[in-house]
Amino acid sequence: MIERIDTGQRMSKIVKHNGVVYLCGQVGEGATVAEQTKDCLSRVETLLAKAESSPDRILQAIVWLSDMADFNEMNAVWDAWVPAGEAPARACGEARLARDALKVEIIVTAAYGEKLA
Amino acid sequence: MIERIDTGQRMSKIVKHNGVVYLCGQVGEGATVAEQTKDCLSRVETLLAKAESSPDRILQAIVWLSDMADFNEMNAVWDAWVPAGEAPARACGEARLARDALKVEIIVTAAYGEKLA
Amino acid sequence: MIERIDTGQRMSKIVKHNGVVYLCGQVGEGATVAEQTKDCLSRVETLLAKAESSPDRILQAIVWLSDMADFNEMNAVWDAWVPAGEAPARACGEARLARDALKVEIIVTAAYGEKLA
Repeated sequence: MIERIDTGQRMSKIVKHNGVVYLCGQVGEGATVAEQTKDCLSRVETLLAKAESSPDRILQAIVWLSDMADFNEMNAVWDAWVPAGEAPARACGEARLARDALKVEIIVTAAYGEKLA
Repeated sequence: MIERIDTGQRMSKIVKHNGVVYLCGQVGEGATVAEQTKDCLSRVETLLAKAESSPDRILQAIVWLSDMADFNEMNAVWDAWVPAGEAPARACGEARLARDALKVEIIVTAAYGEKLA
Repeated sequence: MIERIDTGQRMSKIVKHNGVVYLCGQVGEGATVAEQTKDCLSRVETLLAKAESSPDRILQAIVWLSDMADFNEMNAVWDAWVPAGEAPARACGEARLARDALKVEIIVTAAYGEKLA
């Protein structure tokens, strides 16, 4: 009924249920928000692949920036990454993150499963 | 499997999947939080109608206020708008939004589809 | 199609739809973040039980801390509470909450329904 992947005591990186996969909040390494966003989205891709999903099946993305001044720089990376015609519903707000060095965190919900032809 | 409506490169305003519709974070025009909340909820109504949904089918609403001092003023508009007996699960936190003029953003998840008699 | 439990004019504490239950953002009483987290998670348990769900079926948890300095203290309570092997996808960001005394709020989405043997 529920499938959990990469499960620790605090959280699972992937939780699958009823056609929808929930990823834990993803962050990235790097000195700039552009670098962190790239790394973050690369991790999202890896997790989605593990979940039998893909970036063109994201339903909702909630983006937290530690400083809203980074909005345009984050968006440049985001816009280039999103598969054309398959952008998710998105919201972006400012929130301090778990470590001071973190500039961006993205919470992804996606569909998974075999694609119909 | 996934239906996207009003899709741009950055986000879709509406994403439908498996009986659930995800709206992108909605904001509103206006000088006060009351005005912005009214406009925001009016946009939510328009998008839900486009998604074959309606305000009485909202499952979850996450409200971000740029200043929690606006909590009561936002709630007065919200409380008057929610269909009686059909209030969603809700959470409200403070977060700076994409533009300084924005005072409120609401992230809506709803059920859609034909209503059973 | 949608079942709402403990419904007021502003929000429902529980909304059930299509195998997924959405709880309204939960907070807790107490002077410290540890106390508030314990009380908050106890309320989550009560609501999940009412929803025909349980802590081992949480899909996603979004944690808001009013001060990220409380991260480790909140996590100590969280880690001890999560059923082993059944941790949800989680994200944690800093956000001021509805009242100044509140230090933590948790938004829970879970699966519900009869468990298969």
